Amino acid sequence: MTKARIALDVMGGDHAPQSTLDGAKLALESWPDLVLLLVGDEGRLKAQLPGHGLVGALAERFELVHAPSVVTMEDKATSVLKERKDSSMRVAAQLVREGRAHGVVSMGHTGAAMVASSMVIGRLDGVDRPGLASVMPNRQGRPTVLIDVGSNVDCRAEHIAQFAVMGAVYAEQVLGVAHPKVGVLSVGEEEGKGTEVTREASALLRTLPLNFAGNAEGRDIWNGHFDVIACDGFVGNVVLKSSEALAGAVVAGIKESLAGSLATKFGALMVKPGLKAFFQKFDYREYGGLPLLGIKGVSVIGHGSSDAKAVKNGIGAAVRTYEGKVSERIQAGIAGLLPKE
Amino acid sequence: MTKARIALDVMGGDHAPQSTLDGAKLALESWPDLVLLLVGDEGRLKAQLPGHGLVGALAERFELVHAPSVVTMEDKATSVLKERKDSSMRVAAQLVREGRAHGVVSMGHTGAAMVASSMVIGRLDGVDRPGLASVMPNRQGRPTVLIDVGSNVDCRAEHIAQFAVMGAVYAEQVLGVAHPKVGVLSVGEEEGKGTEVTREASALLRTLPLNFAGNAEGRDIWNGHFDVIACDGFVGNVVLKSSEALAGAVVAGIKESLAGSLATKFGALMVKPGLKAFFQKFDYREYGGLPLLGIKGVSVIGHGSSDAKAVKNGIGAAVRTYEGKVSERIQAGIAGLLPKE
Repeated sequence: MTKARIALDVMGGDHAPQSTLDGAKLALESWPDLVLLLVGDEGRLKAQLPGHGLVGALAERFELVHAPSVVTMEDKATSVLKERKDSSMRVAAQLVREGRAHGVVSMGHTGAAMVASSMVIGRLDGVDRPGLASVMPNRQGRPTVLIDVGSNVDCRAEHIAQFAVMGAVYAEQVLGVAHPKVGVLSVGEEEGKGTEVTREASALLRTLPLNFAGNAEGRDIWNGHFDVIACDGFVGNVVLKSSEALAGAVVAGIKESLAGSLATKFGALMVKPGLKAFFQKFDYREYGGLPLLGIKGVSVIGHGSSDAKAVKNGIGAAVRTYEGKVSERIQAGIAGLLPKE
Repeated sequence: MTKARIALDVMGGDHAPQSTLDGAKLALESWPDLVLLLVGDEGRLKAQLPGHGLVGALAERFELVHAPSVVTMEDKATSVLKERKDSSMRVAAQLVREGRAHGVVSMGHTGAAMVASSMVIGRLDGVDRPGLASVMPNRQGRPTVLIDVGSNVDCRAEHIAQFAVMGAVYAEQVLGVAHPKVGVLSVGEEEGKGTEVTREASALLRTLPLNFAGNAEGRDIWNGHFDVIACDGFVGNVVLKSSEALAGAVVAGIKESLAGSLATKFGALMVKPGLKAFFQKFDYREYGGLPLLGIKGVSVIGHGSSDAKAVKNGIGAAVRTYEGKVSERIQAGIAGLLPKE
């Protein structure tokens, strides 16, 4: 296996290029075999490299690739196919298509990154819709993969079944879960509960060599009873955004509560280390980004607000996805869902 | 307006009849005009009344109504229409149908309570599917109504529009929100985002005299930007169960973190009062149960694990729903959605 070569959209993200350049340095230090292609405005970036420590020996493990424009939050997702063809995001995806990189990492416009990855890098044979996977930290201290959270709406049964296969490969190869337990998200445990689409998806999944356990419920996203939960991208997106907001509200509420009386403030100082360790579990920066699965290469899409640590971890997720041969294994797994000759 | 008469399914719930009898006493004490119909095994309950303080002056404000059987968690939701016709849940709903009570409160089998309320009490004219509403405590310390959380799957646009109207009436009349801001749950703020069904629902809602603000996202359930969010019962049910589990995981995680070092334990004692006030906001017992809206009467369906306080608050929600003329106002509001002559 050749060393992982990852294309980083240096211009994508609210704090780019500071956060992405700092994240690139951390990643190069963390993975000694990693090679990075830093995609952005070459003239502008070149002058900034020394200020971010991207010099000396590290400089031998990255190269700058020029892209004159940037996808902004005001651009449409499809802009990467038209007016933003010369953007850092599109050029980074192009490097994967051309075989110059194994994967792309972007903290920019999520929809545009999904379009660039799906359309430029291309879907695997037999995959109708690439799925965006989210790794949720469950109550048992392990990860649960929820897929699709990328707003693939009006999914058919075969789409959900494909998401389940992709999620299972990711859980096994990247998260190290042996025989991941897979479920289809529904409104009750019993086999008959759900929509026509979820029931059909379950019927398809029962025919595959997976550890498929039937319906999962909303609570199963957090209780650790499933390793992989597949769903329509509408419900996945709503659950992801709702969960981020709820966790944020709880953390903010606790901080407010602890800012009360003097005794409470004093107590708060003492409990801070314990709480910090806990909140870290719910910190998206630990995961670095969401893998888009079902494409002919690796793509990790991060939060716009990503800092250097999140960028580093996003690059790490891309490295592990490449090294785990996730695309190849999804291609093999998905074959069981294709119509039999 | 006559005094509120509420039928309580005394046998429903994990801790019934202890929790329901204690809750009945608390409710009678809290609402001096309230009359309760306590539905259950008369012989068995009669002997227990004194032990729960249901004696003296209070005894003039309740009566026992006999029902020999109970809906168990193993029963099907539709059992109330067939083999469980003589159950406390069905008999309580029957009292509303017959005009002997204004509303029913049950902490028993949620699906069965929905069937009993919809089929026995009956739907309002123009309501295709009654909607189960959940009151979520948002970050701004106010309630957000999410409707439907009752697993009405495969909703059409008119169902979601009806849920929105029902939720708006409930927010205004029971929660005291003036001109509640209403949204349709979707995967992006922009008008075009979502499914064909959510877009059609929005188009319907724009024609009504509501404070309709377009698409809401998952995060809006918690940030207080909307007062009412309408959705398909599949996504509503998943979000509700997921949120309960996430909040539970966070609370458990914090408790574990605080049980760490000695210094932390000592600090935890000092922050306890502050945290308690905060966790109370996320305690379902404060809300007592979920109102089923769109029926010819009042129905509040509570958590199976409800204790006396939750039962009391569930009865309180039923009283306020009756006094707020919620059914009558929904009937009037829904008229705008009916096909024009």
